[in-house]
Amino acid sequence: MAELSTETLHGSLADPAISSMNLLNELIGEYPRAISMAAGRPYEEFFDVRLVHQYIEAYCDHLRRDRKLDEAEVTRLLFQYGATKGIISDLIARNLAEDENIDVTPESVVVTVGCQEALFLVLRALRADDRDVLLAPAPTYVGLTGAALITDTPVWPVRSTENGIDLDDLAHQLKLAGEAGKRVRACYVTPDFANPTGTSMDLPARRRLLEVAKAHGILLLEDNAYGLFGADRLPSLKALDDSGTVVYLGSFAKTGMPGARVGYVVADQHVAGGGLLADLLSKLKGMLTVNTSPIAQAVIAGKLLLNDLSLTKANARETAIYQRNLHLTLDALARAFGSCPGITWNTPTGGFFITVTVPFVVDDALLAHAARDHGVLFTPMHHFYGGKGGFNQLRLSISLLTPELIDEGVSRLAALITGRLP
Amino acid sequence: MAELSTETLHGSLADPAISSMNLLNELIGEYPRAISMAAGRPYEEFFDVRLVHQYIEAYCDHLRRDRKLDEAEVTRLLFQYGATKGIISDLIARNLAEDENIDVTPESVVVTVGCQEALFLVLRALRADDRDVLLAPAPTYVGLTGAALITDTPVWPVRSTENGIDLDDLAHQLKLAGEAGKRVRACYVTPDFANPTGTSMDLPARRRLLEVAKAHGILLLEDNAYGLFGADRLPSLKALDDSGTVVYLGSFAKTGMPGARVGYVVADQHVAGGGLLADLLSKLKGMLTVNTSPIAQAVIAGKLLLNDLSLTKANARETAIYQRNLHLTLDALARAFGSCPGITWNTPTGGFFITVTVPFVVDDALLAHAARDHGVLFTPMHHFYGGKGGFNQLRLSISLLTPELIDEGVSRLAALITGRLP
Repeated sequence: MAELSTETLHGSLADPAISSMNLLNELIGEYPRAISMAAGRPYEEFFDVRLVHQYIEAYCDHLRRDRKLDEAEVTRLLFQYGATKGIISDLIARNLAEDENIDVTPESVVVTVGCQEALFLVLRALRADDRDVLLAPAPTYVGLTGAALITDTPVWPVRSTENGIDLDDLAHQLKLAGEAGKRVRACYVTPDFANPTGTSMDLPARRRLLEVAKAHGILLLEDNAYGLFGADRLPSLKALDDSGTVVYLGSFAKTGMPGARVGYVVADQHVAGGGLLADLLSKLKGMLTVNTSPIAQAVIAGKLLLNDLSLTKANARETAIYQRNLHLTLDALARAFGSCPGITWNTPTGGFFITVTVPFVVDDALLAHAARDHGVLFTPMHHFYGGKGGFNQLRLSISLLTPELIDEGVSRLAALITGRLP
Repeated sequence: MAELSTETLHGSLADPAISSMNLLNELIGEYPRAISMAAGRPYEEFFDVRLVHQYIEAYCDHLRRDRKLDEAEVTRLLFQYGATKGIISDLIARNLAEDENIDVTPESVVVTVGCQEALFLVLRALRADDRDVLLAPAPTYVGLTGAALITDTPVWPVRSTENGIDLDDLAHQLKLAGEAGKRVRACYVTPDFANPTGTSMDLPARRRLLEVAKAHGILLLEDNAYGLFGADRLPSLKALDDSGTVVYLGSFAKTGMPGARVGYVVADQHVAGGGLLADLLSKLKGMLTVNTSPIAQAVIAGKLLLNDLSLTKANARETAIYQRNLHLTLDALARAFGSCPGITWNTPTGGFFITVTVPFVVDDALLAHAARDHGVLFTPMHHFYGGKGGFNQLRLSISLLTPELIDEGVSRLAALITGRLP
């Protein structure tokens, strides 16, 4: 019989970064009653199963009314196999024009099974041989790490600052990679309220990043899962891009509905010998998931249609709650630690996350202690460095909390932290 | 700016097998009014948008009634991020017991974005380095070819017979692969009404295949997308397997609803150092699509629940139609070609496909001629050989037809074929 061993299976399965994330999630799962400042999940109060039905019907009405489909055509579109690129690319293009001032054709959009599949498709396309590497800020989103692992793409880390990716270090790493015989295909960035740090890039840094990427002939993979949830919005890299440098990775998990598992990629680059990059990503998608569930797409389309194609409008209540939670958490941190030397935190203006720095090691043992003895959960930052850094930092997530839970959560955190101070 | 060229992108994008399939689909798309004996899509007459709502509600009722979830828990399960392995593994295990006499635990099931993602996950896990190869019968399902391409897995072809994979050639190819320094990880098979040939394996051949695989320590990847649609059912390999040899690939695209894009893999093998193979596939899925849309899973779950967990029962009407279409098409072929020397076809007892062999070359130019001048579509078999064989064969699909379309379609085919005879 077949003898299976992790040693003879794909290397990604033995990668410490992924194993540690899994262990982390198991640990967190063991303490369901603890106050969770760990999970980056969207707020749940407005969830309602009836919305699923309303969204699907809204999309069907749109097909009947605006696209003049008869009932057999509507039903076929929802039930049958569908176009690999998706059936709602037109609505996504209109949403990007409405909310992001991004001007793209539906043909350059591929609807994916969440942003995660979009990450996989782009890395799969760009990773042709052993020379190819991807740059990404450290710390970085674990989804990027995962997509890189299963495509055998080495990720070359670049330093982060409070203004996003460090542009001097980016230039330096591009030089080092070239000297090492590597071919840098792209740099992954999250200019707005990054996961895990919460940091954003200012406008001059965005423009400068575009210039550096353009000059070096690399793509920028812009992940914008949290951009909507801020007070003042800056233009995305894609909105500023006039040279085909940016591949835009979109997620509806935070702005639409996690359970639909719908995301997309905008890839309007022309490929010599291959049409649009979106066409090639669509070919890969055909070999991976065939097409994104039309029913799941209909749910997202319905939410867009019922909100004038604006997710800013659709999320007005959620954004207010995330902003409230962010400010309440920052205030609570100031009250708890304002007079503690050695404890600092950044002050994001949007998104789900805050980075706290402490003068002792934050590892999974500390998290286990926090969960068991203090009833509070956070994410040790080293998980986002692949275990190679961030050992004095933790990530706090504010998205699932209420004002009462924030006060109590930060109090519990304060009891843990002050107990560890010298 | 970034200069992109297919030459510097992943090799799968330039593979002739996939490009030819894409060209084929484009060609077919150009003739929407032709009678299509090409598409392997399920019958559409019973599609109804209201079913989507009914299925979702049936699943919610099950959660409330049988699993005692309160409304917030039901809503969270549908809306929020979910377990990577899926939320309906228990119902799938019950369905497998009911319809297939397969006894597995829910823990060994991973719910996937269609069977295609399941294929990818299994090949990704098994392909560790350049030595690893996969065996598969030629001709084979293009989805297998695609998953192999994006995981850089070489597919080593094995001859096919009217009784499925040629077991003598399988033993021979295992020997050759070993001599070439290759590590054969698995053999892909479709014992029931295979796509594209329509052939099935008899019971002795199934038992012998299990013995050969067990003796050589390779896995069998059993794809059973069409097994339900036959008159007499034989046990699947998985039902006969007592040695952990079979990884079972399940699809709800034909039996549930294509638009849900839900499939699954049963991988109850124990992996040294890693738990169940299903656990490792789930880790890979976390890096690929995070989880399968719970809403899409709810649609499939509802269909199962409303049919006593039996897809045989749920598809009674569809199976009768596919059986009728199969027999009508075989009868029409006998009437049209019964006296034509050199024209033969096989006689599948179920599924969607029939193989027709003719004494001239069947290429895409012939298909274009058939579409344009005769108004009938089929699939040249060479597409399933990666362009390396099958040049005298075509695949007929019967799933979308009516009795009238069958008569007219075979008549048109007869006009094409007899015009080419010497």
